[in-house]
Amino acid sequence: MSNTFGHSFRITTWGESHGRAVGVIIDGCPSGLDISEREIQEDLNKRRPGGRLATERREKDRVRILSGLFNGKTLGTPLSMIVDNLDVDSGPYEPLRDTPRPGHADFSWEAKYGIRDWRGGGRASARETLGRVAAGAIAKKLLSRVLGVSVLAYSLEIGGVSSDVRLVNKEGFLVGDISEMKGIVYSNPVRTLDLKKAKEMEKAISEARLNRDSVGGLIECVIAGVPTGLGEPVFDKLNADLAKAVVSIPAVKGVEFGAGFGVAKKRGSEINDEFIYKDGKIQTKTNHAGGINGGISNGMPIVLRVAVKPTSSIGRPQKTINIKTKKKTEIEITGRHDPCIVPRAVPVVESMVSLVLADHGLRSGLIPRRLV
Amino acid sequence: MSNTFGHSFRITTWGESHGRAVGVIIDGCPSGLDISEREIQEDLNKRRPGGRLATERREKDRVRILSGLFNGKTLGTPLSMIVDNLDVDSGPYEPLRDTPRPGHADFSWEAKYGIRDWRGGGRASARETLGRVAAGAIAKKLLSRVLGVSVLAYSLEIGGVSSDVRLVNKEGFLVGDISEMKGIVYSNPVRTLDLKKAKEMEKAISEARLNRDSVGGLIECVIAGVPTGLGEPVFDKLNADLAKAVVSIPAVKGVEFGAGFGVAKKRGSEINDEFIYKDGKIQTKTNHAGGINGGISNGMPIVLRVAVKPTSSIGRPQKTINIKTKKKTEIEITGRHDPCIVPRAVPVVESMVSLVLADHGLRSGLIPRRLV
Amino acid sequence: MSNTFGHSFRITTWGESHGRAVGVIIDGCPSGLDISEREIQEDLNKRRPGGRLATERREKDRVRILSGLFNGKTLGTPLSMIVDNLDVDSGPYEPLRDTPRPGHADFSWEAKYGIRDWRGGGRASARETLGRVAAGAIAKKLLSRVLGVSVLAYSLEIGGVSSDVRLVNKEGFLVGDISEMKGIVYSNPVRTLDLKKAKEMEKAISEARLNRDSVGGLIECVIAGVPTGLGEPVFDKLNADLAKAVVSIPAVKGVEFGAGFGVAKKRGSEINDEFIYKDGKIQTKTNHAGGINGGISNGMPIVLRVAVKPTSSIGRPQKTINIKTKKKTEIEITGRHDPCIVPRAVPVVESMVSLVLADHGLRSGLIPRRLV
Amino acid sequence: MSNTFGHSFRITTWGESHGRAVGVIIDGCPSGLDISEREIQEDLNKRRPGGRLATERREKDRVRILSGLFNGKTLGTPLSMIVDNLDVDSGPYEPLRDTPRPGHADFSWEAKYGIRDWRGGGRASARETLGRVAAGAIAKKLLSRVLGVSVLAYSLEIGGVSSDVRLVNKEGFLVGDISEMKGIVYSNPVRTLDLKKAKEMEKAISEARLNRDSVGGLIECVIAGVPTGLGEPVFDKLNADLAKAVVSIPAVKGVEFGAGFGVAKKRGSEINDEFIYKDGKIQTKTNHAGGINGGISNGMPIVLRVAVKPTSSIGRPQKTINIKTKKKTEIEITGRHDPCIVPRAVPVVESMVSLVLADHGLRSGLIPRRLV
Repeated sequence: MSNTFGHSFRITTWGESHGRAVGVIIDGCPSGLDISEREIQEDLNKRRPGGRLATERREKDRVRILSGLFNGKTLGTPLSMIVDNLDVDSGPYEPLRDTPRPGHADFSWEAKYGIRDWRGGGRASARETLGRVAAGAIAKKLLSRVLGVSVLAYSLEIGGVSSDVRLVNKEGFLVGDISEMKGIVYSNPVRTLDLKKAKEMEKAISEARLNRDSVGGLIECVIAGVPTGLGEPVFDKLNADLAKAVVSIPAVKGVEFGAGFGVAKKRGSEINDEFIYKDGKIQTKTNHAGGINGGISNGMPIVLRVAVKPTSSIGRPQKTINIKTKKKTEIEITGRHDPCIVPRAVPVVESMVSLVLADHGLRSGLIPRRLV
Repeated sequence: MSNTFGHSFRITTWGESHGRAVGVIIDGCPSGLDISEREIQEDLNKRRPGGRLATERREKDRVRILSGLFNGKTLGTPLSMIVDNLDVDSGPYEPLRDTPRPGHADFSWEAKYGIRDWRGGGRASARETLGRVAAGAIAKKLLSRVLGVSVLAYSLEIGGVSSDVRLVNKEGFLVGDISEMKGIVYSNPVRTLDLKKAKEMEKAISEARLNRDSVGGLIECVIAGVPTGLGEPVFDKLNADLAKAVVSIPAVKGVEFGAGFGVAKKRGSEINDEFIYKDGKIQTKTNHAGGINGGISNGMPIVLRVAVKPTSSIGRPQKTINIKTKKKTEIEITGRHDPCIVPRAVPVVESMVSLVLADHGLRSGLIPRRLV
Repeated sequence: MSNTFGHSFRITTWGESHGRAVGVIIDGCPSGLDISEREIQEDLNKRRPGGRLATERREKDRVRILSGLFNGKTLGTPLSMIVDNLDVDSGPYEPLRDTPRPGHADFSWEAKYGIRDWRGGGRASARETLGRVAAGAIAKKLLSRVLGVSVLAYSLEIGGVSSDVRLVNKEGFLVGDISEMKGIVYSNPVRTLDLKKAKEMEKAISEARLNRDSVGGLIECVIAGVPTGLGEPVFDKLNADLAKAVVSIPAVKGVEFGAGFGVAKKRGSEINDEFIYKDGKIQTKTNHAGGINGGISNGMPIVLRVAVKPTSSIGRPQKTINIKTKKKTEIEITGRHDPCIVPRAVPVVESMVSLVLADHGLRSGLIPRRLV
Repeated sequence: MSNTFGHSFRITTWGESHGRAVGVIIDGCPSGLDISEREIQEDLNKRRPGGRLATERREKDRVRILSGLFNGKTLGTPLSMIVDNLDVDSGPYEPLRDTPRPGHADFSWEAKYGIRDWRGGGRASARETLGRVAAGAIAKKLLSRVLGVSVLAYSLEIGGVSSDVRLVNKEGFLVGDISEMKGIVYSNPVRTLDLKKAKEMEKAISEARLNRDSVGGLIECVIAGVPTGLGEPVFDKLNADLAKAVVSIPAVKGVEFGAGFGVAKKRGSEINDEFIYKDGKIQTKTNHAGGINGGISNGMPIVLRVAVKPTSSIGRPQKTINIKTKKKTEIEITGRHDPCIVPRAVPVVESMVSLVLADHGLRSGLIPRRLV
C-alpha cells in the first residue's frame, strides 16, 4: 500500500467507497494561505457532471476541514479533509463478491491482499479520487496565488468524437484566456471546449448506455504561467512526476507530453524548438516539447494528454469465473455507473497535475514555506 | 536534484558526461545474489549498437564494482559501480556554452541552477543512463532468479518504419520465447525483432544522417512471468511507477500500457478482459489491460510502449539566442551524435522497467531480503 | 512540517488541540489483522492516569475507525482513526496569545510559521500524541501476533524518587513476566513497577502542584521476544530509529540504550557481552548492549530509557515578553495542566517504540504483508 | 539496508573496510558553492588523531571528488566522493570469521544477512564514517557561508576524566570564540578543550592499552549562530533528527539535549527558559532547552551530548562461541585498534550534526537551492 504522494507538498488519502468516509491529509502546505471549505466544495462538485449522463447516485459530498486552518488561514500544519459516505447501497455488489468483474481491480486486489471490501469497489473505487480533488483545490490556489500558474483540463475526445477546439494551437501555445475557457469546460456535461461536438459526445455516451456498454476518450491538460526551473532531474523530472501522477488515476492507460507519440514520425529539424528572446524573456518559437526540456520547465505552457479507458462496469452480461469454485459464470453489473468516466476524470487530472506542480514549486524554492 | 529512485530497491546515480566518471549505488539488493562485473558489462555493451549507425565515440566503458560484493555474492550492503569517462573531447561543446541548443536541456538547466557543465551535456547527457543500465542488469538477474520474470524491450518503429514483428499478439499474449527473441533484438543494430524491416530502419537513420537531421521512434517492452500482486495502490501503482521510470529517460515523450491510447476509441465490451481458469490458475482470455488491473499485476504479460523523440543534436544550422547578450545567433552542432537514439534507449527502457519490478518485488515481499 | 513517520509501516497524524478533531492514518498495515475499536480505546485510556494527579480535563476521547477495516479485519488499505475534540475551553489561552510561555513551543512555532493556533497549544499540544497511541496499539498487536514481541514502558523516576523495581536486572535480562508487570504499571497513577515508591512519586507530584510547579522524570522501556535481524544499517539502525521516535515525543530531552551514558566510565572488558549458546540459540551472557549490536537486534531484550522534563505549564508567575510590543510582561498559566507529564508519556513511549519495531519487522521481511 | 540519510540534503554512503574503496554521494547540495578537495581532506584528516594514541594503521585517505563540481563550484548535481582502501591487511581477521567478537556487529549482521565481509569489520567498520565526514565538510561550509552557523564537537570525558572546560556555561551560552576553540580541540590528540585534563585523558587511554582494554567517554557538540525556524514537527523535529543522526554513529549509546537527563531531577520553575528581548531580537535568559523548543530551533545555541562506549576490540582473551559448531571458544583480537574511539568520533559527531542542520536549512527554505 502506498497512499502518500509528493515530496514537499504531500497528500495521504484514505477511505473505501462504502466505508464510513473518505478523506485526505495535506502535509507541507505553506502557512498563511487563505482557504475555505466553499472553494474546495466547488472543485468537488466538478466531479459531478450532473444531467442525464452521470451516475444516478446523488453524491451529497460535503467536505469538512478538520485541522490545519485557523481564522481562514493555513497554519502550516496538516490539513485534514473528510467527506462522509452517505447514500450507500451495497446491495448490487453482493452477488459479485466472488466473481471478479472484467476490467476491474477485483481479482488482482484479492490476489495481493487475500481480502477486499467488495462493496462499491472498496478502495479501488473512483470515489478514492475525492481526496485527490480536495487536495488539488488547495494546490491550485497555492499555484495561482504565489506563482500565477493556472491549470485547465478538458475532454479532447469521447467515444470517437474529437473536439475541434483546444486551449493550445499546433505550435503548443495558448489560444485563449484560461479562466474564460474554464467557464466553457464546466458549462457542458462532457467537459469539453467544443460546444458543438459536446452534443455529439453526449450522444455517443447515451448510445453506449442504451447498449449497456461504455466509451473511453482523451483528456488534455494545459498549464499556463509556469516559471522556469520546476523539475528535479534525473529521476524526479517534472514530466516523470506528472506521468506517475496521472497514470495513478483509475482508468488511465497512457500519457504523452507536447508532440507526444507523434514524435516517432518526426525529424529533429521539425521538433526542435528554436530559442528566441521576446517580451524581455527567453522563450521558444514553437512548443513541441510541451514546456519541459530535460525534465525542467522552460517557461512555456506545459501540455499533456491522457488516454482514459471505457468504464469497466457495463450492464451487458459478461463471462468470468468464481474465484472460490474456479467455475465459469456470467455476471450482469447493475447499480449506478457512468457509461463514460472521462468527464469525471477531467477535474481529477487537473488536481493531480496541480499537486505535482505545487510540490515542485516547494522543492525548487519558488514557493516559500510561509506566506505570512 | 533528485538522483535516487525506488523505495526498497533503490538506486542513486551520479556523474557528468565529461567529468571524471559516472556511477551508481544500489541500496537494498538482497544478500546472497551471484553477481559478476562481466554480466553487468554485457548489458552496458548493449548501449553501444556498433556499426556505422552509432556514435563514433568509442566508449570503452568498463564497469568496476567497488563495494557490496564478497566472493561473488552480494552482501546486502550498497553496491557501488563506476565507469570512468575516457576518450573525452570537450572541444566541440566550447562554442555552444552560451547558446542553448534547441530541444536540449541547456537553457532550462541554466535557468534552474545558474551554472552548468556545458561539456558534453554535463549531467543532462544520455551518458547518465549508464548507471541505470548497470543497476538494471542486477535487477534483471534478481527478477529472473527469484521470480522467473524476464523483460525484453525492442524497437517497434524507427523513422516511420514499423516492425511487423512483436513479442506479443493483438490480444497481448506472448508469441515467442523471450530469450530467443533477445538474441534477435541484439543481432541487429536497430534493436528490432523484424529483421527485414531492420534494414529499412537502418536506411531511415542513414538518410537522416546524410541530411544532418535525426529520427524518432517507438519502443515496446514486454515483461513475462510476472506474479500477481506487484503494485502498491493508490499512488505507487505498478503502471504509475513504470510510467515515471520510463518518462524519466531522456527523450521519452509518452508511455502507454496494454491497449494504450487506442482505448479512447474502444467500448468497454471490447476492452474488458474476461477472467478464465486455465492451467491451474486464474488468467484473462485477452490482455488488453497489459497485465495490470487497478495498479496491481494480474499475472498476465505486462506490455508498454514509449515514444522517443528524434535526437536533438542535429548537424544542420539552427537558430537560437545567446543567453548572455540575448542576441540571435545560429549554431551548427558538430561532435559525435547518433541521428537516432531509439536503439540506444532500448536497453535503458529494459533497465528502468526491471528496476521498478525489482523494487515492487521487494515491497510486496515476493522477493525476500536474503537469498542465502 | 513533517507529520509522517515510518518507512513501510507509516503513520500520518493531524489535528490541533482545540480544533475539530485529531487523528491518524496508518498506511502499510498488513491485511488480515483482527482489530477492534475497543482495543485501541483501551490504549488511549492509558493516557488518562485518572485520580487527583491528572489534568482535570475530562477527555472523553472516543476513537472511531473510519476506513481500512472490513468485518473486523484490516484490508491492507489505510486505517483512518479519529478522535473528536470535545470539552474544549480556549478561554485560559486567550491572554497568552502574544506572550510565549517559557519552555513551550509558542515562540519558535510563531517564528517558523508566522501564525499559530494559540488555543491549547495548537498542534504543539501533547494532545497530538493521541494519534501516536492509537496507531501504536495496532503496531503492538501486530508485533505480538506475528513475532511474539511484547513492549512495556514504565516510570523509573519521578520528581527525584526512583523506582527500586525494574523489568530487567543489572545484566539487562528480564526478571518478570511482562503481561503481569503491565498490570502493575497500570494499577497505579504514576505508572511505575514499584508500588511502594509509587506513593512517594505521587507525593512529589502533589507537592509540585501545591507549589504551582512541576517535576520531571525517567521512563524505561523494555522490548521482549525480539527476533534477530531488525535494523537497517548504516542510517536506519534500530537504535537510531528508536532514538528519533522517542525524542520526537514532546518534553523528551534524552535517550539511552542498554548501559547508556554509564558506558563513559566503563572499560571494554566490562561492557562487552560474551556470546554463548543456550537453549538452542546464540545469546549473550550479559546484555549491556541493550539488545542491539551494530544497529541490528541481536535477539536479547531491548532496553532504553528516556528523560522527560517537568511540565512547562506551571501556575506560578513567569516573566516573558510580548512578541508584538517586545515589552517585558509576566504571565500566570491557568487552565488544566498536569504537574508531571511522565505518567502520560509512558504509553506514548511504548507506542513510538512499537511503531518502530513494526516498521522494521516489515522492512526486514519478518512480518509478512498479509496475514490472510 | 538503508544507506541514505536526509530529506533535501541527502547523502548515500557505501563501502566495506577492506573492499576497494569507500565513498559518499551528496544529492541536493545547492549550486554555486565553492568546494575544494583540500577542504574536505582537512576534515578527513581530523579523524586521524595521530600520535601514539591512535591506531597504527596509517590511513593515507586521499579523497577525490568525481562529479558535481565544475570550475570549483557545485553544479547542483550529485557530488560523488571516493577514498581508496589502501594499506589493507585482512590477515588478523581471518581467525575471527566464525567467532563473533563480543560487543561487535559480527553476530547480528550474520543473523540478518546470512553473509558478511568479515575483513576489517566490513560495512560495520568505523571506516564507514569516512563518507559521513567528507559530506559533513560540505554541509559545514554551506551552513557557515549561507547562515553563519558554526558547529564544534569535543571530548567532554574520557576514561572517567572530565574536562573542566566547555564551550558553553551552565546556562547554556557560549563562553568563547568557536573558531579559536576549534584550534584548541585539534591541538591535542584527545580532542578536548581542557589542555590540562587532556594529559590525564591520554594517560587513561594509555593505561587501557597496556591492560589490553579500552575506555569510553562523552562528546559535547555546540552549534552557534542558529537561526530560528529549523525543525519540522511533529516527527522530523530538529532534536529528533539530530538524535537519529548521532545514534547512527557506531559506538554511540545515548544522546541528550540542553539540560538532558538532568531534567529528571529539576522543577519546571528551574528549567523553563524565560523569554527576553535583547540586542534587537527575542532570546531566552537561560538556555536549558539547548536551543530547541517544540522541535524547532529558537535561535539560542544548540547543545547536545553523546555517550560513546569503550572500543569493542580489546586485546585480552575473550570468550565467545563458534557460530558454525556452536562450541565455546576464546579469541584474542590482534590488529590495529584504538583503545578509545572517542577522539575519532568527535569529527563524526560534528559531521552528522552539520548534515542534519544543512538538511533542515534547505527544508525550511532558509538555505536557497542556488547560490549563483
